Amino acid sequence: MDRIKNIKKNLKGNFDALLVSSLPNIIFLTGFDGFSSEEREAYLLITKRKNYILTDARYSEVVNKLSGFELAEISSNRHFAQALKEIVLKEKINKLAIDEDNLKVSEVLKIKIAVKICPDESLIEKMRAVKDENEIESIKKACNLGDKTFEYILTQIKSGITEKTLAKKIEIFILKNNAAVSFRPIVAFSKNSSSPHHVAGNKKLEKNEIVLLDFGVKIENYCSDMTRTVFFGKANNTQKKLYQTVLEAQTKAIEYLKSSINASSVDKTAREHIESQGYPTIPHSLGHGIGLEVHEKPSLSPKSKDELSIGMVFSIEPGIYIPGFGGVRIEDLVFLGKNGPKIMTRANRELIEL
Amino acid sequence: MDRIKNIKKNLKGNFDALLVSSLPNIIFLTGFDGFSSEEREAYLLITKRKNYILTDARYSEVVNKLSGFELAEISSNRHFAQALKEIVLKEKINKLAIDEDNLKVSEVLKIKIAVKICPDESLIEKMRAVKDENEIESIKKACNLGDKTFEYILTQIKSGITEKTLAKKIEIFILKNNAAVSFRPIVAFSKNSSSPHHVAGNKKLEKNEIVLLDFGVKIENYCSDMTRTVFFGKANNTQKKLYQTVLEAQTKAIEYLKSSINASSVDKTAREHIESQGYPTIPHSLGHGIGLEVHEKPSLSPKSKDELSIGMVFSIEPGIYIPGFGGVRIEDLVFLGKNGPKIMTRANRELIEL
Repeated sequence: MDRIKNIKKNLKGNFDALLVSSLPNIIFLTGFDGFSSEEREAYLLITKRKNYILTDARYSEVVNKLSGFELAEISSNRHFAQALKEIVLKEKINKLAIDEDNLKVSEVLKIKIAVKICPDESLIEKMRAVKDENEIESIKKACNLGDKTFEYILTQIKSGITEKTLAKKIEIFILKNNAAVSFRPIVAFSKNSSSPHHVAGNKKLEKNEIVLLDFGVKIENYCSDMTRTVFFGKANNTQKKLYQTVLEAQTKAIEYLKSSINASSVDKTAREHIESQGYPTIPHSLGHGIGLEVHEKPSLSPKSKDELSIGMVFSIEPGIYIPGFGGVRIEDLVFLGKNGPKIMTRANRELIEL
Repeated sequence: MDRIKNIKKNLKGNFDALLVSSLPNIIFLTGFDGFSSEEREAYLLITKRKNYILTDARYSEVVNKLSGFELAEISSNRHFAQALKEIVLKEKINKLAIDEDNLKVSEVLKIKIAVKICPDESLIEKMRAVKDENEIESIKKACNLGDKTFEYILTQIKSGITEKTLAKKIEIFILKNNAAVSFRPIVAFSKNSSSPHHVAGNKKLEKNEIVLLDFGVKIENYCSDMTRTVFFGKANNTQKKLYQTVLEAQTKAIEYLKSSINASSVDKTAREHIESQGYPTIPHSLGHGIGLEVHEKPSLSPKSKDELSIGMVFSIEPGIYIPGFGGVRIEDLVFLGKNGPKIMTRANRELIEL
């Protein structure tokens, strides 16, 4: 309940109540992960006095077990804004903060109450960026299974296999190990690897081609994310140079990491190294925070205003992409601890030739 | 491009341009399914004169291949509303329709243009409710694999197996058959089956317990959905009566189906039969349309204003749920053809005792 206390501190100055609608935020504040991810089944309302879960009667048993929360029932006959209205009137709420990046237009139009609506200033997202011990433990488990998945998948890379089949093998391996994928795995062969978000297709693997694998695991609601680029056959000198440059950029960025620096300066460190070798700049950000979602705060990008601090977990994933030729990306998760950065994904980062 | 033509007809009267933001709608109109489902990567803008895809340069090759669409480039330096503004000014658009159920508050706040914003009247969702031959073919494939999955899973139901393990087996079987699940499978044993949306847990199966299985397949972007309730051991008389009543309610509803009737009257048919036998009413709607999404138009619920018409595909899924005892639900997909309703899911609907 420290998380709720933290929010209540902010309620004093900026707004009277906070409407929480995003599922990761609901899991973060309640610890309950049983609401549907496909439909809007619940909202939280944190006021100065109380904490409400706006949901339907099916969940009344669950809500009763969650200490510190009270059920405000909604149903097909009574939408969330009606339940909200009663609380707003009862508790004399003047200024209601909402999550503008999550709430739909039609939802906010339903709030027909004399209340001032304002943005929530990403209050919860900022809290989520700094992980506690339990969160680190869950991410560690996800990273470990990611490493195991990579080891397994190396044994499955064979001539003639398609990107799709390899992607499916990643997914099945993770499922069999009692976890889920944190996103649809990216598998890109040869010149397909020059597209950072390639969708695995029917391309068959041939000798001397690049194999780019980008996948993540979800355990106890927490995500991992990693990318490895390996060579099926012998890497030629151009490919080797590409690989070494990306690895150097990543190493430089990780060595540069410390608390209280701008995330953008880390991005710059890796980006400048790649540019200095005559390669095109990274067409995406260097990294992103990770936790209940694959992409969360902080953002390690050129324009980011985020500052790094102890307890954060994020990816460092430089890449070089040459259209028509191929690409190399190396991605690891880093935990910024009291004694400096610690790489959480442990799989081999040296050039692998199969 | 008939779909786009259909939209343009509506543009004449109601609004000058339509901003399309939901991914299923983008797939429906372009046929391209490569945009991320996790992040907002693209919007469509359908105007009287042209059709634009607002997306970043990574997709320029794809957009060039899509006949009838023009790229309006967006990037991290140029958000969609800026690209939108240029088109609005160039084409003198006065009234812009948006998807209020999909667009986020923060997105609509970015549209700082002198343009009247209005709801899109679910134009595309209404079109999507009536399927063409290709769509029916894809749903049929998904249903067939669903049937195969059910046959397979019957061989896996054993004493001591957990709900989670059985749910995982469903997922792996579907993946191995080159498809994806259309939603997280529901597996509920014994009294857990009295919760319509139970999340598979660690409950172990014991003799003479109910096994409720609700799962779906996604093939070529189209979904299936089915529920079967089977008995591990012998069903007692109470369970048999429950099962027969649900099956009768489903049969009555399917026999009642024809074109040009209110969806609510179908719901009523099943609901009244269940109530007439002294059971609690169905705590959810009788059914829902299905296609690119698991839940789409029409809605077969007591308050639905939708009318059924030829070409629609929807579920018929009555259920009886008795807290502390258990529940029975039987769900099939029905295609409303010229010659009447046709059940697309073919798995055995008679009471199964294992």
